[in-house]
Amino acid sequence: MGEEARSASRIIATAATEIKNRALGEIAAVIQQSRGSLHVENDLDLQAGQKNGLSDAMLDRLALTDRRVDGLLEGLEQVASLADPVGEMSDLRYRPSGIQVGRMRVPLGVVGIIYESRPDVTIDAASLCLKSGNACILRGGSEAIHSNRALGSCIQQGLERSGLPGKVVQLVETTDRAAVGELITMDEYVDVIVPRGGKGLISRICAEARIAVIKHLDGICHVYIDDKADREKAIKIAVNAKTQRYGVCNSMETLLVSKQVAESVLPELADLYNKEGVELKGCERCREYLPEIGPTAEEDWQTEYLAPILSIKVVDGLQEAIEHINCYGSKHTDAIVTEDYTRGRRFLREVDSSSVLINASTRFSDGFEYGLGAEVGISTDKIHARGPVGLEGLTSQKYVVFGDGQIRQ
Amino acid sequence: MGEEARSASRIIATAATEIKNRALGEIAAVIQQSRGSLHVENDLDLQAGQKNGLSDAMLDRLALTDRRVDGLLEGLEQVASLADPVGEMSDLRYRPSGIQVGRMRVPLGVVGIIYESRPDVTIDAASLCLKSGNACILRGGSEAIHSNRALGSCIQQGLERSGLPGKVVQLVETTDRAAVGELITMDEYVDVIVPRGGKGLISRICAEARIAVIKHLDGICHVYIDDKADREKAIKIAVNAKTQRYGVCNSMETLLVSKQVAESVLPELADLYNKEGVELKGCERCREYLPEIGPTAEEDWQTEYLAPILSIKVVDGLQEAIEHINCYGSKHTDAIVTEDYTRGRRFLREVDSSSVLINASTRFSDGFEYGLGAEVGISTDKIHARGPVGLEGLTSQKYVVFGDGQIRQ
Repeated sequence: MGEEARSASRIIATAATEIKNRALGEIAAVIQQSRGSLHVENDLDLQAGQKNGLSDAMLDRLALTDRRVDGLLEGLEQVASLADPVGEMSDLRYRPSGIQVGRMRVPLGVVGIIYESRPDVTIDAASLCLKSGNACILRGGSEAIHSNRALGSCIQQGLERSGLPGKVVQLVETTDRAAVGELITMDEYVDVIVPRGGKGLISRICAEARIAVIKHLDGICHVYIDDKADREKAIKIAVNAKTQRYGVCNSMETLLVSKQVAESVLPELADLYNKEGVELKGCERCREYLPEIGPTAEEDWQTEYLAPILSIKVVDGLQEAIEHINCYGSKHTDAIVTEDYTRGRRFLREVDSSSVLINASTRFSDGFEYGLGAEVGISTDKIHARGPVGLEGLTSQKYVVFGDGQIRQ
Repeated sequence: MGEEARSASRIIATAATEIKNRALGEIAAVIQQSRGSLHVENDLDLQAGQKNGLSDAMLDRLALTDRRVDGLLEGLEQVASLADPVGEMSDLRYRPSGIQVGRMRVPLGVVGIIYESRPDVTIDAASLCLKSGNACILRGGSEAIHSNRALGSCIQQGLERSGLPGKVVQLVETTDRAAVGELITMDEYVDVIVPRGGKGLISRICAEARIAVIKHLDGICHVYIDDKADREKAIKIAVNAKTQRYGVCNSMETLLVSKQVAESVLPELADLYNKEGVELKGCERCREYLPEIGPTAEEDWQTEYLAPILSIKVVDGLQEAIEHINCYGSKHTDAIVTEDYTRGRRFLREVDSSSVLINASTRFSDGFEYGLGAEVGISTDKIHARGPVGLEGLTSQKYVVFGDGQIRQ
C-alpha cells in the first residue's frame, strides 16, 4: 500500500487542476447514484454499534443521514471551487547575482489520515488531499468499516472515471489495530500523519509515530473580558462562545473577567447562562458576586468540558489573564474583549495560541470561517501548520531559481 | 536547563527589535574584546585535536583564525540588519461574517541545535535564534568544547549588557553523549531540533528524537544539460557547479547530458574538468565519447562525493533526467540548462527537490544567495521548512482575528 501510494503521489502531484476538479465532480456523482447502497452499508454499522453498546452520541456521529450525504456533496463541490494551491509561485525577487529566486507550492506527497467513527471524514479528507495533489491512506474506525468501504468504493470509481489512478486514495480495509502502528512508522512511504479523533487516539499516535504528525490536542479556549470592554459586546461574545455549540473544540471552557467589571457583568451573564442550562463554577472572587454557584478546583482550569459547563475566574487585569491562558490553555483559541488599543495589541502578541481574537467569539476559529474552505483539522502545534489546516497545510514550498547562465563567483 | 530555556523563551518572544539588535551588537563587542582569550581557548582544542589524531580537514574546521573571528563579527552585524520577522502580520482579509482574519509570525519557542567541530556555528545559531525571538540550547562537539565555552561566555555577557536574560542562549557544557539523548526527547521544553553535521549524527538524531527535526541529509545535486541548452551556459554552469568548491552540499555530484548533445559538450567538459583535477566516471554511453574515463557503478548515483569526483550519465532526454533525479537524488538542489520554455517549466514542476534551478549553478542554493541573510541549515524535508532555513524557518504563524463584537450564527 505504501509503495502504491508513493507511486500514485507522483501522478497526482503534477495532475492538472481541471483533472482534479473533474475527479471531485465524478466522486460526487457516484455518491449521488449510490445513496441507496450507502444507507444499506451504514445500517450494518449502526446495527453493529447498537449491539456493541455504542453511546447515542457515537451512534449519531456514525449515521450517514440524507442530510449528511447532502453535506458530503456540498463539501466536494466546495473543494472543487477552491483555488488550486499546487504550483503557485510567490516572492520572486532578483538577487544581486542576477538570479531570480522565489518559492513554488508543492504537495507533501503521501498523507496518512487516522480517524474515528464519523464516516464523513472519509470524503472530507480524501477531497482535500486530492485537491492539494497528495495521495492518501485513510484509516477509519472499525465501527464505521462498512460505511467507509462503501464511500471508498465511490471514491475509486470517481477517480477512475476521471482518468486518475484509484490508488491516489487508499482505504485500510482491515480493522486490525496493528495497521495503525504500521502506517505511522513507515516513513519511507508516508510524509505526514493527520489524526482526527479523541485525545487518547492522538496521544497514542504522537507517542509512537516516526513521521511528522499534524496534531490537535485539547481545545481549552478562553474569553477575557477586560475592564475596558464594551459591555454589550462582552456579554454577546461570552454567551455565544459557550452556548452556540458545546461539543466542539473552539467553544469557551473558561471565562476570565477583570475584577473591575465583575460586579457589572457577572450577574447578567449568570442569568443568560442559566437560561441555556449551563452549569457555572467559579473561583473564590467570582463567588462573591455569584454565591449560588459551585467552586472551581485546580483541574477545572485544565479541563476541556465539551459540555454545558463553564469555569469563571475573576482576574486583576490583562497581565493575570495572559498568564492564566498561557499556563492553563491548550494553545488553541483565545479571545479578549476590550476597546483599549494597547491592551488589544498586547493580548494578540503575547497569548501563545494558534488563534487569538479581539472582540469576536472563539467559535469563529475554523477553516470555513477563516476562508480556507475546509480543514483536515486544527493544529495546536507550531511546527509546519498552526490553527485550521486546509489545502495550504497539506502543501510545502520549494525554492525555484530562474537564471540566464549565472555561476557562483 | 529546559525549564530555564522555556521561561527565557517567553521573554525573548516579545522583546522589541531594538533590544534584540542591541544584544547582537553587544555580543560582537565582547567577542572583539575577547580575541586574545578566544585564541587561547581555541588552541587548547586544537592541541587536544592533534593529540587525538583529528584529520587536517577536521582541525581546519576547528580553528578560530582571525579571519574567522572577523566573519563572526560580520555575521552578527548582518543578522542585526535583517528585518525582524516576529509580529509581522499578513493576509488580513475581511470575511463575510465581518471578522478580519490574518496571520502573525511568531517564534517557535525553544530551539535545540546540535553540531560538530565548527565553533563558528555557536555564534551563527545563537544570533539567528535570538533575532527570531527563540531561546536556544546549543550542544557543540566535544572537540570544540573550550572554544564553545569561551564563545558562550561572550554571548552571556552580550545578552546581559543589553538587559536580556542570559538563559536565552544556553550551552550544554558537558561532553557526555547522553546529554544529546536528553535534549532530543524533552518535548516539553524544546520545540524543534536542528542538527548540523555529518550524516551519522543526523540519522542518529532523527531515529531517536521525540521532537520535530529540521534535517539536512545528503546533497546529491544534479545538473541536466538538455539538447535545447545554450552550449556556452551549459559548460559554464556544469564546471562551476562541480569545481567552485568541493566539500559543500550544493555542489554537483552527477551530471546528466542529453544524448543529442553528448558528442558536442562532453569532450570539452572533460578537458575543463581535467584541468581542475576532477576525476570523471561515466555510464556506458558516456564512455563512448570519453573512453579514457572509468565506469560508474550503481552506488555512484547515490553517493555524495564532497570531493573532486563526478559521475556522468547520458540520458535520452528530459523524461529520463527527471526520473533519474527523483530516483537517485537527495531532494536537495537540481538544475536544468535549457532554452526550451515547456521543458524548463516541466523540470521546475516535476523535480521534487528543495531547490530547482533553470540556467543557474547549483552552488547558488544557500541562504545568503537566496537573500535570507543567513541560515541554520538546508532542509531536504517537506514538513515545516524546505531548502535554506533562515529566520522565517525558525518561526511559525498564528491566526489573528479582529472583530467588532461578532458572534457565530
